[in-house]
Amino acid sequence: MRLADLETPALLLDRARMDANIARMNAAVARHGVMLRPHVKTGKCVEVAAAMAAGWSGAITVSTLKEAEQFLTAGYLDILYAVGIAPNKLGRAADLVAREAALTLIVDSVDAACEVAGFADFPVLIEIDSDGHRAGVAPGDSATLTAIADMLGDQLRGVITHGGGSYGCTGADQLAAHAELERSGAVHAAETLRSAGFPCPVVSVGSTPTALFARDLTGVTEVRVGVYVFQDLVMAGLGVCETADVAVSVLASVIGHQAERGWVIIDAGWMALSRDRGTQGQAIDQGYGLVQGENDLIVVSANQEHGIIADRHGRPIDFARFPIGAVLRILPNHACATAAQHDRYHVVHGDTVSAAWPRFGGW
Amino acid sequence: MRLADLETPALLLDRARMDANIARMNAAVARHGVMLRPHVKTGKCVEVAAAMAAGWSGAITVSTLKEAEQFLTAGYLDILYAVGIAPNKLGRAADLVAREAALTLIVDSVDAACEVAGFADFPVLIEIDSDGHRAGVAPGDSATLTAIADMLGDQLRGVITHGGGSYGCTGADQLAAHAELERSGAVHAAETLRSAGFPCPVVSVGSTPTALFARDLTGVTEVRVGVYVFQDLVMAGLGVCETADVAVSVLASVIGHQAERGWVIIDAGWMALSRDRGTQGQAIDQGYGLVQGENDLIVVSANQEHGIIADRHGRPIDFARFPIGAVLRILPNHACATAAQHDRYHVVHGDTVSAAWPRFGGW
Repeated sequence: MRLADLETPALLLDRARMDANIARMNAAVARHGVMLRPHVKTGKCVEVAAAMAAGWSGAITVSTLKEAEQFLTAGYLDILYAVGIAPNKLGRAADLVAREAALTLIVDSVDAACEVAGFADFPVLIEIDSDGHRAGVAPGDSATLTAIADMLGDQLRGVITHGGGSYGCTGADQLAAHAELERSGAVHAAETLRSAGFPCPVVSVGSTPTALFARDLTGVTEVRVGVYVFQDLVMAGLGVCETADVAVSVLASVIGHQAERGWVIIDAGWMALSRDRGTQGQAIDQGYGLVQGENDLIVVSANQEHGIIADRHGRPIDFARFPIGAVLRILPNHACATAAQHDRYHVVHGDTVSAAWPRFGGW
Repeated sequence: MRLADLETPALLLDRARMDANIARMNAAVARHGVMLRPHVKTGKCVEVAAAMAAGWSGAITVSTLKEAEQFLTAGYLDILYAVGIAPNKLGRAADLVAREAALTLIVDSVDAACEVAGFADFPVLIEIDSDGHRAGVAPGDSATLTAIADMLGDQLRGVITHGGGSYGCTGADQLAAHAELERSGAVHAAETLRSAGFPCPVVSVGSTPTALFARDLTGVTEVRVGVYVFQDLVMAGLGVCETADVAVSVLASVIGHQAERGWVIIDAGWMALSRDRGTQGQAIDQGYGLVQGENDLIVVSANQEHGIIADRHGRPIDFARFPIGAVLRILPNHACATAAQHDRYHVVHGDTVSAAWPRFGGW
């Protein structure tokens, strides 16, 4: 099948780009002698996860219990659910343990630890807030760390952090500094626990920017990363990759023109592209996405099933290049969000479509 | 089943609020003696569409061919696909006609009309750009209107417009003025076509704000509206409804606190809430959603499966009200976008869950 045979909108996955992104991350992590625990929330696809996990232990990270269930069925036993668990999910999580999953949970409070402790034989990590961007115990809060560890008893396995603040960094030096913040916070918390007599074998860190730019991972045992597999315009805007590395795109058709306003109208709106505006605060705002192969044509506006393409500088468009029915590929701001709008990847090599890989959604 | 029995995140639909929203729109449209052709893209759910269509002719509006297929299967024969069609979809559209659907298409250029004309026995409307916000022929562009009509021949049925610019209006007077812009643009174009000898029986207009606030619909034959069925914070921000009218919400659990920053962390991130920030440019920015029953607690930040709730004015939160495991309901900025993140509606009356209604996605 050829690209021209697809109905639009359609989610495309450039296999060669994905493989190159995976090879780059594998090399970056292997250099530090730590384990990669890929985050499968970006792809939510067995074939994508298999490519990410190849050559590693098979350990994965998930963001929902549905991912845990789907990937357990696919043969992945070592699963880290990297979101603080709500009590109403514990029964379902216990069902996975009954199915022989080694399902690790995370907590960042004594109250949450109290819910988890003894509910089932979950290994548990304490979440550390290494950069102030979201959840977790402050690395220096030894009272809370030890209180949680006391509550968990022998379910405690270690600590986990996610340096998501790295999405606000740009350039190799800032990214490396953020990686060190992430590493040092997690290692400091682990040492606090060990000093208090708690075993803490696991020190888990990760975000795509910090993993690729870390200069030292001393004390870390595993790295969790997800979006690297596809990359996206947000990552390109941080200097983490080039736009030419972005492996997913949305195929769209031209359905109209508004010549006086310099608009090309396509059949991919926010339903196909997502509402993610992750580049809005970056040096280069890519609207709702960049037309692949173009420097300045972006999706400036999106309704549910309509996208409006214009030149970012307001220059006129040569409409003869974009007749009714012409197809374009839109690179996404945020691969996780855009892929989540679709139920399959059309795997492409150039203009050839070689496979359709299903992806799932929901919880 | 009770609300407390649901796993989070979950999409809730308050049946009483939905029914009141439907009754209000039905009365608003009936007052003008025109037909309602509800847009089923908001709900993408047979049960929701049935409630919207009750008492009318059964005519519906769709935004994708998948909606057309699903609702044809559910017994709806008179279907308007209100997005300019890409040529690669025509074969599939023709299959619906072969299944006895009266599938109306829309075009806004001679080139698009050329693709559609003669492909199958589609009724066709010419899309009119009544307010400059998206697609369509300018109401006064009689040369293009008649050229398209010539191309369509006896497939031409009339004109269609969508006053989507009404989403930038606030208050009854601005909304009524926009309704008049929408009405007059469509009627002017219809009269231009009739003067040139083309029959133009259908004059189709609509958006939730204009339909509810129109003072005169002379010359209009049908109104298309969708989001009214649920309403949302964007509509409330325009003065179209109250927040107490919003019928959909996302049930979420508290999974953590960051006391020093005044944050309550919940298990509903952008995957459950969507990335829609439609209130960002309004007088009251609701972040990623407002906690139902609260005036000032909003989701200030969203990651994939985490939401961060804070007071919009930065005031401290009484965390005792929001312990680990407490559930909250988040009202959405944009009901279409939030509902699209879920595969079912949990229909609620107070704290009782009476049904789960499936919804579909994709194209």
